[in-house]
Amino acid sequence: MRDILISEVGPRDGLQNIKSILPTEAKKRWIHGQHQAGASEIEVGSFVPAQLLPQLADTAELVAYASGLPDLTVSVLAPNKRGLEAAVKSGAHKGSIPFSMSESHSIKNVRKNHPQMLEEVRSCIEFLRQLPRDRRPAFEVSISTAFGCTIEGEVPEDQVLRLVEQIVALGADEVCLCDTTGYANPVQLARLLEAVWANCGRDKMDSVHLHNTRGQGIANALRAVELGITTVDASLGGLGGCPFAPGASGNIVTEDLVFLLESMGLRTGMDLPRLLEVREQLQRDLPGEELYGFVAAAGLPKTYTAAA
Amino acid sequence: MRDILISEVGPRDGLQNIKSILPTEAKKRWIHGQHQAGASEIEVGSFVPAQLLPQLADTAELVAYASGLPDLTVSVLAPNKRGLEAAVKSGAHKGSIPFSMSESHSIKNVRKNHPQMLEEVRSCIEFLRQLPRDRRPAFEVSISTAFGCTIEGEVPEDQVLRLVEQIVALGADEVCLCDTTGYANPVQLARLLEAVWANCGRDKMDSVHLHNTRGQGIANALRAVELGITTVDASLGGLGGCPFAPGASGNIVTEDLVFLLESMGLRTGMDLPRLLEVREQLQRDLPGEELYGFVAAAGLPKTYTAAA
Repeated sequence: MRDILISEVGPRDGLQNIKSILPTEAKKRWIHGQHQAGASEIEVGSFVPAQLLPQLADTAELVAYASGLPDLTVSVLAPNKRGLEAAVKSGAHKGSIPFSMSESHSIKNVRKNHPQMLEEVRSCIEFLRQLPRDRRPAFEVSISTAFGCTIEGEVPEDQVLRLVEQIVALGADEVCLCDTTGYANPVQLARLLEAVWANCGRDKMDSVHLHNTRGQGIANALRAVELGITTVDASLGGLGGCPFAPGASGNIVTEDLVFLLESMGLRTGMDLPRLLEVREQLQRDLPGEELYGFVAAAGLPKTYTAAA
Repeated sequence: MRDILISEVGPRDGLQNIKSILPTEAKKRWIHGQHQAGASEIEVGSFVPAQLLPQLADTAELVAYASGLPDLTVSVLAPNKRGLEAAVKSGAHKGSIPFSMSESHSIKNVRKNHPQMLEEVRSCIEFLRQLPRDRRPAFEVSISTAFGCTIEGEVPEDQVLRLVEQIVALGADEVCLCDTTGYANPVQLARLLEAVWANCGRDKMDSVHLHNTRGQGIANALRAVELGITTVDASLGGLGGCPFAPGASGNIVTEDLVFLLESMGLRTGMDLPRLLEVREQLQRDLPGEELYGFVAAAGLPKTYTAAA
């Protein structure tokens, strides 16, 4: 039984943002280890052309590998319809398309403005709908820069709401609010979550992707969970840092989040001591890369017991 | 107007736990700078014998200096009656005595068991009561190891409640719950805060001292503030680390806490850009020492506005 699903995004979001290229065998070791430690959803890569992201060029092979592990949802990022087609071909259980709420960020990132992105989402959903059900992955739209943008600054909340409504109306299976830039605070997070739920119902959005860029990640996760969010993205060792602020922190740290939630009596299904071993192995496999997080440095308290 | 008072403990708790000795002039520069940035309460040192803590031997001089700054509560740690006498002589506005809820930790730290510590508290209060009012500092008892202990592990909550009741009955002006070991989680924190308030009323305890040893510090601060706590201790740059786990984080980071609270619309009275300058100066003055925190590395978001 699980209260909160921690969706591991390190193999995609983490590896995308570092200098080193982690060999495929080491990635498999990571995925295997984290699965053994209780992970039930892992984003194993991204279907973008290899010349753009050589560090994620082995995604199809990783999907094939991870799909052989029992009770594991294998997720991939697919920035457009071509990527989604590759995701379907690979057999991934879930495909996730990032849609920037800041139009400037969208244009810079994927060279599409908002109408073009909406058309891309429509086209993806149309493609998926003509597939037989047993070959159709879940389709999630990641609502990125939802809390602000390094280019535009404030992203008006009614703009976010309007776009999310349209995305849901097009037929996305789920949406995930993402604090891509590490700008969010708990009050803003609560306001936006409640507004999206009021507009679109609660069943389309039960996950968040938070960054710890300014130390607020775990506090935002706490607020999200208090409000009823049941899936939180995180990265082992906080791998990846912040693409916008070199040297800054990025994804919240999987093991620190597991510690907090389990200590609070919220079951994550994760075995924290085993997870810490997986992190140690990851650090050995990425000797030049910085890992974040505090539990690894401090160890577990004598009082630590996992949630029942 | 201030919603949350951030009580700066870096000059005492931070400096106590590092190898370097910060020269008195640099400490004055720190206190002055942080006061200019809006700090209204600073723990400037500790009255212990100089041979025990040479790094804090200049406390009397710092109290004299800080007392000259307008609208600043000058606080000191005083581990026993002798220290409190020195605090009174120095003119400090507030004296704080740590009282470990774990008897093993109390014995190890100050060589006093619980009955002896209660007697020390009684003796301190008796001493203060015979002083004329205008020479009597506020007397706070820091309820340390309230959430667990590195020696004993779990510290039974009814033991904490019983001791706090006795401390309050003896006449302490205030108590402060301290997560000395970085063990606490938001559920436990809420439970203990509510229980103390139920037993002793709300006016004796409106502050907490939290550690970020396992990444939970800011989340615990969020929960505390949600519950009605109005004073949170923090250390600039998280100076000091963890005395129990070398290399681990310790006090929550003042500037990261200011960022979170101000972003949420909670007024701290702190000028964050100025505070970051004070941190930079501190790092220059302590070149060999590690500072923690994320806001300093990432900078402020374009969307950042201080609370009105």
